[in-house]
Amino acid sequence: MKIQLITIGNELLNGKIQDKNAYWLARFCHEHDLELTKNQIIPDSEAAFMLAMDEAWRDADLVVTSGGLGPTKDDLTKPLTAKYFKRALKESAQALEVAQRNYAQKNREYNPAMEYSKIPEGFEAIYNAAGYAPGLVFKSDDKMLAVLPGVPAEFNRMFTEEIYPRANALFGDSSSLKKHVIVKTWRMPEAKIFTSLCPGLWEKLETFGQVSSLPHPLGVDIGVVVEAADEKGLALLEQEVIETVFATPLKEHIWHVGPESIEEIIVAKASAKNLTIGFAESCTGGLCASRITDVAGSSAVIYGSIVSYSNSVKNGVLNVSESILNTVGPVSEECALEMAKGAGEVLGVNIAVSTTGLAGPGGDGNHPAGTVGIGVSSAKGSSSKMHHFPEMERVDMKRVFSQIALYTLLEEINKA
Amino acid sequence: MKIQLITIGNELLNGKIQDKNAYWLARFCHEHDLELTKNQIIPDSEAAFMLAMDEAWRDADLVVTSGGLGPTKDDLTKPLTAKYFKRALKESAQALEVAQRNYAQKNREYNPAMEYSKIPEGFEAIYNAAGYAPGLVFKSDDKMLAVLPGVPAEFNRMFTEEIYPRANALFGDSSSLKKHVIVKTWRMPEAKIFTSLCPGLWEKLETFGQVSSLPHPLGVDIGVVVEAADEKGLALLEQEVIETVFATPLKEHIWHVGPESIEEIIVAKASAKNLTIGFAESCTGGLCASRITDVAGSSAVIYGSIVSYSNSVKNGVLNVSESILNTVGPVSEECALEMAKGAGEVLGVNIAVSTTGLAGPGGDGNHPAGTVGIGVSSAKGSSSKMHHFPEMERVDMKRVFSQIALYTLLEEINKA
Repeated sequence: MKIQLITIGNELLNGKIQDKNAYWLARFCHEHDLELTKNQIIPDSEAAFMLAMDEAWRDADLVVTSGGLGPTKDDLTKPLTAKYFKRALKESAQALEVAQRNYAQKNREYNPAMEYSKIPEGFEAIYNAAGYAPGLVFKSDDKMLAVLPGVPAEFNRMFTEEIYPRANALFGDSSSLKKHVIVKTWRMPEAKIFTSLCPGLWEKLETFGQVSSLPHPLGVDIGVVVEAADEKGLALLEQEVIETVFATPLKEHIWHVGPESIEEIIVAKASAKNLTIGFAESCTGGLCASRITDVAGSSAVIYGSIVSYSNSVKNGVLNVSESILNTVGPVSEECALEMAKGAGEVLGVNIAVSTTGLAGPGGDGNHPAGTVGIGVSSAKGSSSKMHHFPEMERVDMKRVFSQIALYTLLEEINKA
Repeated sequence: MKIQLITIGNELLNGKIQDKNAYWLARFCHEHDLELTKNQIIPDSEAAFMLAMDEAWRDADLVVTSGGLGPTKDDLTKPLTAKYFKRALKESAQALEVAQRNYAQKNREYNPAMEYSKIPEGFEAIYNAAGYAPGLVFKSDDKMLAVLPGVPAEFNRMFTEEIYPRANALFGDSSSLKKHVIVKTWRMPEAKIFTSLCPGLWEKLETFGQVSSLPHPLGVDIGVVVEAADEKGLALLEQEVIETVFATPLKEHIWHVGPESIEEIIVAKASAKNLTIGFAESCTGGLCASRITDVAGSSAVIYGSIVSYSNSVKNGVLNVSESILNTVGPVSEECALEMAKGAGEVLGVNIAVSTTGLAGPGGDGNHPAGTVGIGVSSAKGSSSKMHHFPEMERVDMKRVFSQIALYTLLEEINKA
C-alpha cells in the first residue's frame, strides 16, 4: 500500500509551527509495514492543493491530507476536496450524526454554525475521538482519500482507529514480510565507516536488502531492510546481516542492535539490573531527565535531576565547593565530578551523571561554546571528562550535550 | 523570491528521524521576508527526485535541496542533479579547493576517496563551515539551485552564510514591506473565537491582509500579514490590526502581541523585573526548565529545577511531608503546593512553579492520565490548582503540562 501525505497550512511554511504529523505517520507506516512514499507541505491555496492532489492521487493508493478542516475561513480543505472531485458540498445526515457524537463525547452540544454536517457528496464523515471536526473518507478508482485535521492528537488517533482499518480492508496485506534491521554505532564518523574502516561492507550488506546509513549526533545507525516469505526466513536474514557487521572492525563501535532509542535502552537496562538513575544538569537544563521521562515506565528507574543552572544551586544543593566554582569555574572536570557525586547523594541513586558546559551562542572567554564537562558517579567510583564539539545552534548544542551524557550513563549501566 | 525545498532521504519517510531543516528554513524565510512556497519530502529515488525537481524548478526562483550529499552509496543528490541538468560529473579544481578547506578547518587532510572534488560541470562548490561535504550552487534561466547537506548544523549555516547572500544578489529585494502581526490568546477555544465570541472579527481583519488562526496547546495565535510601501505605513496597519482585536471581547484572553514564544517572553519579563525563577518538576521531568534554557540569556533568570520523579526526592529535597505523599498522594493540590514552596526555598528563587501529574499511558487508579497539579510560590504567597486534560501521547501530554506551568509562571511574573 503506497501512501502519500499532503500537509496543508501557511503556518507550516512560515515557521509558526513545526509539523509533527509527517514524522508520526512515517513511524506508524514503518511499524505497520506500509510505504509512505512522499510528503508535500503546501500553503492554504487552491492552486497548491490541486497540484499536490494531482500527483498524490495519481501515484498513491491512499492519499492522506492533514490540516485545513477547522471552523475558520483559512480552513479550505473541505471545499477544495469537493471541487477536486467535482462533488457538491451538501448537508449529510451521516455527517451530522458524527459531528453530534464528537461534541457529545466532550459533553457539549453541536453548534450548527460550524457546518460540520455539510460534506462533499459521496464522502463519509469520520468520527474524531479527540476533537470536534469530523474527518472525511472518499473511495474511488481502487484508491482512497482520507481528510484529517492537523492537530496531532486528532490526526494520530483518527488515522490509527478509523483510517488504517478501512485502508487495510480495501488494500489487504502485502504478501511478503519485511523487517528493518538496525545496527547502532558510535564514536566513528560516517565518512570513515564505509571507506577506511570497512571497505566493501556496504556492498556486502546490499546483498541482503536496501541499505541505509543514518548519522546522528555522535553516532551512526546502519539499516538494512530484509524481506522474506515468512518469519523464519526473516529471522535468518536478520541474523546474517548482524553477523556481517560484527565480522568487521566496526564491531567495537556497536552499542545496540535494534530500533530502540537510547532513552528506551537506558530505561530497559536499568530496570533489568534494578538500578536507579539521576542527573545533575547545568547546560542541558533538564533535557537529560526530560528525554528519559519521555519513556513510559521510566518512573521505575529515574528518581530525578538537579537542574543547577546557577552556581548557587550547584553549591547549595549539590555541594560543589565554592573554591572549585571560584577557581577552575563551573565548566571544568572538577565541577562535573562534584556535581555527579552531589546528585548521587542528594537523589539517593545508584548512578548519577552530570553536565556542565557552554551551549552558546558564543563562549565565556575561557572556553568556546561546545565545551562540556560530563561526570559520572556510582558504586564503581566517580570520574569526569571534558568534551569539545563544534558550535551549533543553542538547542542543537543542548541535544548533543544530552547525547554524550546519555551515552556515558549507558556505559555505566553496562558496567554495573 | 519564491523558494521551494526538496528534502531527500528514506530515513525521513520511514520514521527514523524527524526532518528539522524545513522548519528552520521556514523560520529563516519568515524573518527575512522570503516566501517558502512548498516543501517536498521524497525518498532516495531517481524517479522521485526528477518529479520533485520538475515542479520545483518550474514554480520557484530558488530551489533548495537538503540531504543525500554524504559519502555513502545512498547519497544520490549529486549524480541525480548532474543528470537532471544533463551535466557530466567532472573533477573541479574549485571543488577540490573547497573540500580541502572544509577538512583543513577541522585540522584534517582531505580524503580523495570521498570524491568531493567531482561536481557537475558548470556548478560551483560551496564551503561547509560545519562539516566535510561541499554544497553546490547552479544558476540558469534566472533561477538558482542550492544543493545542501541534510545535517541541520551544516544546512543552516551554509544557507545563511553562502546561499542567502548569493540569492539576494541574484533576485534583489522585494519592492514592498511585509509584517506578520500576531496576537496570542489563551483560555478560549478556536471554535468559539470567530463564532459566538467575536462574530465578524475574521472579516474585519481580512480587510488588513491575509488572516490565520493557529491553535496551540491551550491557546490560539491570530495572525494578519500586512503589507505597505514603507515602515511608517506598516506600523500604522499593525496598530490598526491590534486595535481591532482589542476592541472585541477577545481582549481579556490576549496574553501577548508579537511573534515571541512564551519561553522568550518569560525570560524577557523576568529579566526586566529582576526576578529569579525555578521549578519543581515531577510529571514534566525537566521539560519546563529545558524549555526556558532553550532561550539564550536565560541564565540571568533561571536558577534551576528540582526534577523530583520519585517520592523520595519530593520528600528529601523538596520537603514535601510524608503524610501528604501517603494520604492524598503526589498527584494532588497539596503536593503541588508543597513542591512549589520547597523549590522556592531550596533554589532560592523569587518565583517557583511545580508540576505533579500523570502523563500516562493510563491513569493510576485514582486519577486518569491528563490530571496535573500546578503550584506556584512567590513573595505574593503560594497556591496550587488541579487541571484536567484529555489523554494524549505521553510526549504531547508532557508538553501540555509544561505549557500550563509556563502560563502560570507568566501570570505570576505579570503580577510581580
